[in-house]
Amino acid sequence: MLLFTTKIVGWKFQSLKPLLSYYKNTYCLARALSVNVNVVEVENGLASIVGSKYVATSHAICEQHSHDESYHRHLLPSIVVWPQSVGEVSEVAKLCTAHKMPMIPFGTGTGMEGGVAPMGPSVSINLTKLNEITDLHLDDFDVKAQPGVTRKQLNYDLRSTGLWFPVDPGSDASLCGMAATGASGTNAVRYGTMKQNVLNLQVVLADGTILHTAGEKRRCKKSSAGYNLTELFIGSEGTLGFITSATLRLHGQPEMTKSAVCSFPTIMDAVNTAMQILQCSIPIARIELLDETSIKAVNNYSHLTHPEMPHLFLEFHGSAASTGEQVDQTAEIAGLNSGSEFKWAETQEEHNHLWQARHDLWYAVKAFKPGSTAISTDACVPVSALAEAISHSAALLDESGLIGGILGHVGDGNYHCFVIVEDDQAKLVESLTKAIGKKAIELGGTCTGEHGIGIGKRPLLKEEVGEKTLKLMKAIKCSFDPLGLMNPGKVFS
Amino acid sequence: MLLFTTKIVGWKFQSLKPLLSYYKNTYCLARALSVNVNVVEVENGLASIVGSKYVATSHAICEQHSHDESYHRHLLPSIVVWPQSVGEVSEVAKLCTAHKMPMIPFGTGTGMEGGVAPMGPSVSINLTKLNEITDLHLDDFDVKAQPGVTRKQLNYDLRSTGLWFPVDPGSDASLCGMAATGASGTNAVRYGTMKQNVLNLQVVLADGTILHTAGEKRRCKKSSAGYNLTELFIGSEGTLGFITSATLRLHGQPEMTKSAVCSFPTIMDAVNTAMQILQCSIPIARIELLDETSIKAVNNYSHLTHPEMPHLFLEFHGSAASTGEQVDQTAEIAGLNSGSEFKWAETQEEHNHLWQARHDLWYAVKAFKPGSTAISTDACVPVSALAEAISHSAALLDESGLIGGILGHVGDGNYHCFVIVEDDQAKLVESLTKAIGKKAIELGGTCTGEHGIGIGKRPLLKEEVGEKTLKLMKAIKCSFDPLGLMNPGKVFS
Repeated sequence: MLLFTTKIVGWKFQSLKPLLSYYKNTYCLARALSVNVNVVEVENGLASIVGSKYVATSHAICEQHSHDESYHRHLLPSIVVWPQSVGEVSEVAKLCTAHKMPMIPFGTGTGMEGGVAPMGPSVSINLTKLNEITDLHLDDFDVKAQPGVTRKQLNYDLRSTGLWFPVDPGSDASLCGMAATGASGTNAVRYGTMKQNVLNLQVVLADGTILHTAGEKRRCKKSSAGYNLTELFIGSEGTLGFITSATLRLHGQPEMTKSAVCSFPTIMDAVNTAMQILQCSIPIARIELLDETSIKAVNNYSHLTHPEMPHLFLEFHGSAASTGEQVDQTAEIAGLNSGSEFKWAETQEEHNHLWQARHDLWYAVKAFKPGSTAISTDACVPVSALAEAISHSAALLDESGLIGGILGHVGDGNYHCFVIVEDDQAKLVESLTKAIGKKAIELGGTCTGEHGIGIGKRPLLKEEVGEKTLKLMKAIKCSFDPLGLMNPGKVFS
Repeated sequence: MLLFTTKIVGWKFQSLKPLLSYYKNTYCLARALSVNVNVVEVENGLASIVGSKYVATSHAICEQHSHDESYHRHLLPSIVVWPQSVGEVSEVAKLCTAHKMPMIPFGTGTGMEGGVAPMGPSVSINLTKLNEITDLHLDDFDVKAQPGVTRKQLNYDLRSTGLWFPVDPGSDASLCGMAATGASGTNAVRYGTMKQNVLNLQVVLADGTILHTAGEKRRCKKSSAGYNLTELFIGSEGTLGFITSATLRLHGQPEMTKSAVCSFPTIMDAVNTAMQILQCSIPIARIELLDETSIKAVNNYSHLTHPEMPHLFLEFHGSAASTGEQVDQTAEIAGLNSGSEFKWAETQEEHNHLWQARHDLWYAVKAFKPGSTAISTDACVPVSALAEAISHSAALLDESGLIGGILGHVGDGNYHCFVIVEDDQAKLVESLTKAIGKKAIELGGTCTGEHGIGIGKRPLLKEEVGEKTLKLMKAIKCSFDPLGLMNPGKVFS
């Protein structure tokens, strides 16, 4: 029997149909259909663990916890709860498990694939009250951060140490959330993604077990001790457990940083430049592509005056001699591909403004049509296939008549189409995303370079890894979370 | 009922006692005790799959497949088989599963923790007949190698391409075996370990399923599509399945390479130099420590004439300007720690001889007592703890009275004690290994930086990651290999 009380505020405009249809699509159908949740009891239980002021069921708060920055909209969570410690996260998990109540870890809500959107009655567990930065080891370049700590906050705290954390998705995301998504950003071409920059994770499983993926103390650079559970949790999108702290690898702030922009007559000239820079093993720190539409958006939103042509935004890190060398080699390659002279960010303000503008691009594109919804595709291909992939995406975008631009971390072969979506264009956008993902897979790439699978890319995941590999992933999920309570409906369909 | 026929050649000097005691220590005791293997039937079945000339049960061949380069000696495999293709590996796995016969993947047999040593009736599956290098993508810096391809063979094949594969354990190991162990080597400080250099794996599960951990085609640099099964198989030591090909990340051969050695009055001066080089973010390619005993061994075995003092062997990669800078900074740091002038490898021959001598150190130490057994400990700690860890190990080695030296990839905080073992010293060596591992764990490190857990370090794994984390590892093992047939008794006890 399905029992929902009037306290499930998210359900007032919903029938049971979407729930049933959702559960029909999950891999643990039989169990899901027997779900029997007394929400009032769960709410009271949660209040007794965290205190009633840290439990909410109001529509406004539930709505805020029902989505990320993507267009994916599903149901509202039944309850939102803010545990104050790892112990409370564990107690909350035990309670939810006892009531067979699905749990959704919530950080900054800045995901791009609907990873925090509830797909049935559920508790959204907001982890941002756990916000300590601890165990900073200046000699070893490592630090521990809890889920409430964002990447900017960490770097602000580190500003006087000579160290920094380089992984930088567009938004100021939670570091633990970035681990959960397998995020990356503009610096990945030189410093790697979250995969290369997490040494250990503290996690809480659905049954409340608290553990460290690499043991309580480990923070050394390498190990071959047993299975790599740290990497397994990176990119697991809250489906295996809560990430309650991450031991992160830091890097020395470069002795010198030089940033420049360079325009090109065509997007292919810019792409070819990026490819050749990588093929020459130039240790470039950032190499970002922005097409004509993206440049228009950046100019409008961030008050810049770049010519409305495809651009590469470039950054070089190193000593004076080594950045000098990198710049010379890069300029030569750009010149051979009809690139303009480099326009340098001369001051720290210009440098910051340039890269902030790049990071704000998502909001800049949305500003084309204030209040609009936007989507971002996220494909990644081998570098040699980048020209073909981007030209295929550009043609699709053109044919669709949608407003949007192409940009990306081309140093990794990773690129996005940002597209404005009208209410009646959902199907069009879905087919665009699917076609871009399929092409990337065909070219030896992936349907998601850094956004994760979430809700939207579940069919593409199957296409990318195949049925047999997916079955192994599901086997892991089932062995970690046998009741299927951790963020159900995400990653797998 | 336990049924062993006379064809189990490995058992002729064995009683059932070790088998029962082994199975008592495994986590699937109940199943193991019900094992009922008709070896003749398995042998006939294998011959019908691979042809009888690729199946062997002779004592000499079984003995050769019963151990790696470590001191761990257990039983002989019942049968050795050489499949010729991935399809045959799959058929062999299906047959063994049908007969509940344990399977042990075998590559070059150069492991250091007994990973290939049978612990009961089993088939040793020698994968070296699968020895193709395919799918070389010069533009994308990636290639595919089967288990019969060793690291030196791959680099020899790549010699004219401008690319190379940097991971270099001491021996000329199989690349797929290196993935299975989570191996690294002298270049890891700059180029990473196998974890950072494998893009995809083809694996065969115990039930014969053939799959790719990242889908059939994927070879792009990054992805956040689903769980990271590639990393899960790296370091799984044959306990989850056979690795039948690895898609590897290649690197551009450096424009310039400079190698030097530098001697120090004490081992601590050398360690402090290494720590400070890393803390200054100098992008050094190799930084290897050799203590006085190791230098003696190297001098004797490789006909070198280094002063018998602790040394750092150093290598710098980059352009002329950047290597020049790295050398100047490193020399300054070494000088501040009482290091000698750098002695340069002036020619390519000198360079090769220097590093070959370093790689041959294991054999050089063994040559102190020809025909002797040696062991290598393998601890890794955060760099700031290196001085404490090494000084603790040196004191233990001194107290023990054992002949041995200390050396290591100190750029990663990873070091080894090489020790000569007499027949009556097994217990002494075991307690030394345990004490070194425990100290490393206590200091935030690991009991194994690159050798894996195998047989010898199972108790230390539990100590390092804790009971709860170990339980998750076992849950994965059980879901991939429910009958516990893949390399049983390794990693877990």
